[in-house]
Amino acid sequence: MSTPWELRFANRTQRMKSSFIRELLKVTNQPDVISFGGGFPAAELFPIEETKKACDKVLTLYGKKALQYTTTEGYDPLRQWIADDINKSGVKITKDNILITTGSQQALDFVGRIFINQGDRVLTESPTYLGAIQAWNSYSPTYVTVDTDEDGLVTDTLEEKIKQNVKFMYVLPNFHNPLGVTMSLERRKRLIELANQFNVPLIEDDPYGKLIFEGEMLPSIAALDADYHNQANGEFAGNVIYTSTFSKILAPGLRIGWVIAPAEVVKRMVQAKQGSDLQCSTFDQYIAYELASGDWLAGHIETIRRVYKERRDAMLQAFEEFMPEGTTWTVPRGGLFLWLRLPDGCDALELFPKAVEEKVAYVPGVPFYPNGGPVNTMRLNFSAANPETIHEGIRRLSVMIKKTMVDK
Amino acid sequence: MSTPWELRFANRTQRMKSSFIRELLKVTNQPDVISFGGGFPAAELFPIEETKKACDKVLTLYGKKALQYTTTEGYDPLRQWIADDINKSGVKITKDNILITTGSQQALDFVGRIFINQGDRVLTESPTYLGAIQAWNSYSPTYVTVDTDEDGLVTDTLEEKIKQNVKFMYVLPNFHNPLGVTMSLERRKRLIELANQFNVPLIEDDPYGKLIFEGEMLPSIAALDADYHNQANGEFAGNVIYTSTFSKILAPGLRIGWVIAPAEVVKRMVQAKQGSDLQCSTFDQYIAYELASGDWLAGHIETIRRVYKERRDAMLQAFEEFMPEGTTWTVPRGGLFLWLRLPDGCDALELFPKAVEEKVAYVPGVPFYPNGGPVNTMRLNFSAANPETIHEGIRRLSVMIKKTMVDK
Repeated sequence: MSTPWELRFANRTQRMKSSFIRELLKVTNQPDVISFGGGFPAAELFPIEETKKACDKVLTLYGKKALQYTTTEGYDPLRQWIADDINKSGVKITKDNILITTGSQQALDFVGRIFINQGDRVLTESPTYLGAIQAWNSYSPTYVTVDTDEDGLVTDTLEEKIKQNVKFMYVLPNFHNPLGVTMSLERRKRLIELANQFNVPLIEDDPYGKLIFEGEMLPSIAALDADYHNQANGEFAGNVIYTSTFSKILAPGLRIGWVIAPAEVVKRMVQAKQGSDLQCSTFDQYIAYELASGDWLAGHIETIRRVYKERRDAMLQAFEEFMPEGTTWTVPRGGLFLWLRLPDGCDALELFPKAVEEKVAYVPGVPFYPNGGPVNTMRLNFSAANPETIHEGIRRLSVMIKKTMVDK
Repeated sequence: MSTPWELRFANRTQRMKSSFIRELLKVTNQPDVISFGGGFPAAELFPIEETKKACDKVLTLYGKKALQYTTTEGYDPLRQWIADDINKSGVKITKDNILITTGSQQALDFVGRIFINQGDRVLTESPTYLGAIQAWNSYSPTYVTVDTDEDGLVTDTLEEKIKQNVKFMYVLPNFHNPLGVTMSLERRKRLIELANQFNVPLIEDDPYGKLIFEGEMLPSIAALDADYHNQANGEFAGNVIYTSTFSKILAPGLRIGWVIAPAEVVKRMVQAKQGSDLQCSTFDQYIAYELASGDWLAGHIETIRRVYKERRDAMLQAFEEFMPEGTTWTVPRGGLFLWLRLPDGCDALELFPKAVEEKVAYVPGVPFYPNGGPVNTMRLNFSAANPETIHEGIRRLSVMIKKTMVDK
């Protein structure tokens, strides 16, 4: 008698999909499954004692303000800290170039909201971050994708792709999600050259940049673009919109990220945020500021780097020990993820239920390709389990893969 | 040489406006201005000591979980608390009917996102909550508005309006923002009858329901609808989507609100939230649960009611003392706001700069009317200032109004 809800939903609702990863996590929540599926930071490294102290200080000194509404733009000392931090790397911004967002996910949603008209072309790496695709699909873009290799985005065909009238380009230069690879300096420079030549904005997603294990920390796209424009006057007038988060260096549960953009873009994003949710948690912004501005942070980041490197090494070693011939993988210099390519003929999506039977989980690679890609790929997270668990999990995974290969 | 950002923005971006109130608050942030413009709860009542204890408990007992990612739907014990609380009033839901949102503002955004196609008709009270208009404008609805009086939404013309093919109806039955009025029981019942007869979903926005000073607490639209459908089986299958928040009974800085809806709608809203920001702050959800489930809350709400009633009374008394003949106002039985109508010929928008000169601020009424309305109206907040300040502020306001009337 009453109208089904399905018939009432807006057209864009039909394009919304549940996050494959988030749904998958529910399946693998059984305690005996070793999951490399999530993107969880190591909880045992969370700064719990420091957070206690920060809560006590914030509530004692600024209780009334920290629990009250604040401006949509965000808590000013936090914005200033973020500006000072990135300016060390050669970018020249002020706090007015910053909007505090609910993780960097919300910054990606706002990018979609303020830029994408139905049918607009968005250029991404292939594969790319699933959460970006999910954020943007409800705005109905089409995707122009560019191949990647161990040095990140392949720039050879970039010019030709950019010429297809793209609205913006989206890249993850450091410890790419899902690939784990890092874009080389040469390619970064070529990317900026082309972006400026063809006047196409660049979205730089950098949640993992500080989690570097080895090698040189390369300048961000934002810093190189500032250099390209020689912005001696301190105005952030380039082509780059940069987003990052405290999720990987403090704690994801606080949901504090940020976006850095030219003033005109920040203004529009602030309007988007006013309509969306008014502002981020005032309390969490105060806490994040106390934590970020503490002397302990540099040492804490060193600890995370050391622990994650051990875990990455444990995973690489287990691959060498267990994986059948024809399996290849990336070797990340930082971050949380690596990318595994199974021998030809394997389908990681099809194998997933068998992996769960063997009590191990991963994320199949196909959903990360906006326009489709090889089925024998998977993303593995190495930050959330200790070396022994990683060793055992990769063993289980290899058992499952070898069984499948025998069956074929 | 480079393309101006304005030319790159999506069409919807052109429809985004800065919140009049949020922009206005910047003007009135000078410490010597008495502002009745905001919607701030009284910060001196914030449960700072209880929040300290809650932080300590949460971090000591559940630190790793409280700082980690959680499900998009929200922290289960908090969802259960919300379900139990509303079920006391005759609604029959489970925690699966609940999504935790960043304040109720985000619930309103998701309503727009999942329901509104360009040009869809949305029925609202006139005037209505400015934040709802702001959230929905980027989805391009047209508004069908229904008049209001001291008993809320006038239902006489409702049937005729509903027949104009409306997608959903949006109401604030308790201590309406901006009016301060309460919808009578008779009108609530008539509204539900018509909503069910014509199969039109009802969005019930109830941020202030618990802040009742006097008179009877009327059943929510959600409870009456459950009654109408006689939902003995406990399934929430009616026509109502209900939203509320902890902003007014705990603290707005935590940004924890919720939406209650049929399972199919919750599922779509969860997808919207995954793309938007993954989830609300895990930490703030744990804190809100600790605070909400404490024995102290009932007494705390009593305190807020008593203090806000004193402040409302102070404002009403100051009106009697100072306001020129021809000024009328609403007498709210709860909440944070009342509505003032100046003598004919006054324009509250035009008078605003003069008020700021007299060091007093308010929100002009016109922006609250989706399709326009009388210019001699304003919204006044009485929760954020003490009785003495209210007395002085209303005196200043009356001086400004009287000056203007002499000038005419």
